[in-house]
Amino acid sequence: MDIVIEKFGGSSVGTVEKINRVANRVIRTVEDGYRVVVVLSAMQGETNRLIQLAHQVSPEPSTRELDVVMSTGEQVTIGLLCMALEREGYSARSYTGLQVPIQTSTMHGKARVEHIDRDKILSNLESGTIVVVAGFQGVNTNGDITTLGRGGSDTTAVALAAALSASVCRIYTDVDGVLTADPRIVPDARVLSRITAEEMLELSSSGAKVLQIRAVEFAYKYGVPIHVLSSFRDVSGTLITSEENRMEQPKITGVAYNVNEAKLTIKNVPDRPGIASKVFGPIADAQINVDMIIQNVGSDNNTDLTFTVDRTEFQNSLRILRDIVPQIGAQDIVGADDIAKISLVGVGMRSHSGVATTMFRVLAEEGINIQMISTSEIKISVIVEEKYVELGVRALHNAFGLSEEHESIEESGPQSLFRS
Amino acid sequence: MDIVIEKFGGSSVGTVEKINRVANRVIRTVEDGYRVVVVLSAMQGETNRLIQLAHQVSPEPSTRELDVVMSTGEQVTIGLLCMALEREGYSARSYTGLQVPIQTSTMHGKARVEHIDRDKILSNLESGTIVVVAGFQGVNTNGDITTLGRGGSDTTAVALAAALSASVCRIYTDVDGVLTADPRIVPDARVLSRITAEEMLELSSSGAKVLQIRAVEFAYKYGVPIHVLSSFRDVSGTLITSEENRMEQPKITGVAYNVNEAKLTIKNVPDRPGIASKVFGPIADAQINVDMIIQNVGSDNNTDLTFTVDRTEFQNSLRILRDIVPQIGAQDIVGADDIAKISLVGVGMRSHSGVATTMFRVLAEEGINIQMISTSEIKISVIVEEKYVELGVRALHNAFGLSEEHESIEESGPQSLFRS
Repeated sequence: MDIVIEKFGGSSVGTVEKINRVANRVIRTVEDGYRVVVVLSAMQGETNRLIQLAHQVSPEPSTRELDVVMSTGEQVTIGLLCMALEREGYSARSYTGLQVPIQTSTMHGKARVEHIDRDKILSNLESGTIVVVAGFQGVNTNGDITTLGRGGSDTTAVALAAALSASVCRIYTDVDGVLTADPRIVPDARVLSRITAEEMLELSSSGAKVLQIRAVEFAYKYGVPIHVLSSFRDVSGTLITSEENRMEQPKITGVAYNVNEAKLTIKNVPDRPGIASKVFGPIADAQINVDMIIQNVGSDNNTDLTFTVDRTEFQNSLRILRDIVPQIGAQDIVGADDIAKISLVGVGMRSHSGVATTMFRVLAEEGINIQMISTSEIKISVIVEEKYVELGVRALHNAFGLSEEHESIEESGPQSLFRS
Repeated sequence: MDIVIEKFGGSSVGTVEKINRVANRVIRTVEDGYRVVVVLSAMQGETNRLIQLAHQVSPEPSTRELDVVMSTGEQVTIGLLCMALEREGYSARSYTGLQVPIQTSTMHGKARVEHIDRDKILSNLESGTIVVVAGFQGVNTNGDITTLGRGGSDTTAVALAAALSASVCRIYTDVDGVLTADPRIVPDARVLSRITAEEMLELSSSGAKVLQIRAVEFAYKYGVPIHVLSSFRDVSGTLITSEENRMEQPKITGVAYNVNEAKLTIKNVPDRPGIASKVFGPIADAQINVDMIIQNVGSDNNTDLTFTVDRTEFQNSLRILRDIVPQIGAQDIVGADDIAKISLVGVGMRSHSGVATTMFRVLAEEGINIQMISTSEIKISVIVEEKYVELGVRALHNAFGLSEEHESIEESGPQSLFRS
């Protein structure tokens, strides 16, 4: 049984007309000979409407009840899509996260998928019925409804693809695929025909918003092939494949940026063991995620410790650090929230030297000062002043020739390309 | 454990403000020392909005998927009410029909409650948590979501009251209680302080729309005491009690009417055994409910057979009968859909003679011709021309002195009055 997962986001099911279009897309896949499981988000705007309603009732609604309310959005769209499919003469059945069931961790609002029961879905698929599953939601061991966090429908789709050993997980979006850069900044940004899961992971964590990062993690961990496609245009989209399927490795795959971070520096920290845990312990206790950490080699056994946090946590982090500074004998704490992170991502970096050098030169030529640098095997990130973000992204996109097509491989259908 | 069920309809939860008002009402009952299970409908207009959405997708949506879509309405309100209760410092938990679970028959759109699992509810009540259950919905043996039909939240509430041996089931409505007649027709219609379940059953089936008829049947069958109250005004409402609790029995409790029926007459039917089943067999096969049936004693071994059906089934019934008429050797079929049924209901009829005589005299004095008569132990119904319905109802309400208060018993709290 060749199973294909097709996931459609809120903008693809925002109106009755769009739901009809989704039905036609699903029917095409069925007619291509596949068994199809559809994953849907709520109609565009609906989740926000429900959250607003909840906040009108209570400034801090309980997360359990918020999940009960929010999860109704997808329940409406799955029912409507089944009606559209049945109207066209196809057998279809909808299932909520609780009905599948999609077992998750207990944490409301950002639960993690732990197990998917395949029986109901497989027996429906075997009898030729299209299965339509509510994205974004599951059920925990208490039998309570949970949700997976913003963009969680992507995770539902990829997790279903892994559980059902699907040939491919198609994610339909309102863009044409994964781009080399944000097209609002780089007008000649190009749709990538291929990207590795590892690169996609780095791009997502660097600010690219095509897929929920946990969905990409899932795909990476379980080797699920993802195909990012447009809901509205018949384009070939982007294949997210495991690395060995790549025919050619360009140096750089894309440029990402993130303007949602803030930077904090503790000056003249005594350079002795245990200091880092004294600083980051209280930060972690406050549930604040730290992104980049840089510690410069200092003079006189003193060092400057700099790190970045989510911008919404900037004031909170400053407050916590002010308590710590005297305890660890440091001099002062300074911070800035007008910063941006620009990242270059590409598996080709491994075999191509000089990427970092080129990046620093290009930014210097534009007069952009680099405040922090962090590197991984397939990514280089720099922190610059926020006002330079567009200029920096454009200059790098151009310098690495990202608008030129490097590959010419055409897809010949999910099965032949993806079957592992 | 003294359990009280409190049910609020769509007009009582139509806005955030009204949900807050419901929370306050529930809290008052908790502070009175009761364990409370709340049953809610969807926000006013929401179920219709969802049905319209479904009909935009498909002219004949499958009932399974329609139930999936419709059942989201109550899921939103139960979550919101829990948030409001928690905001005020009370512990509360919401459950959908599937979560309780409320087991129903398989028929979508008008499923019947078969079994309610009490465990989750009781353990919550024992720990002092307010339980908020979605009305109108359940789950069938396939694990599919079902709905109970219009007004089904009343049935959910009464069924829960029966399953949990609740002291009372309070139904909050947008009226002050059960009235002696429709106040739009009879301005001096009076709120009844008491009515028997049997009378309520006859009133409901005669057109009074305070409670879903299946809820009344449930209350009658299981001896559940119901208290009909206003959501908006602090009035004493109507107690629906078992007959033995009545201190006094007025002759007549109320006047009901129904303008949703149509009348069909088969003329000159040969008066021999088996004719009735030949007529009503095909009618029943077409899922058409027959209300009144009158067969006059005829001459020459011939008789006229008249019956009423729901007005929406009038044309359909006529079509079916035209096929039957030649088969049974009858002469002709005539019908009218401009009729109305007026019913007098009251357990006092049993011991007071002359009610029917008075009724016929009053209608005759107003010049209203009676087309059909049907009686039960506690009800007399007549069919008249539709244009006379207001005149007839007003005249009867006045003739039987229904605007005058007959009882003066005050309720002293649900427990003392209702505990069986």
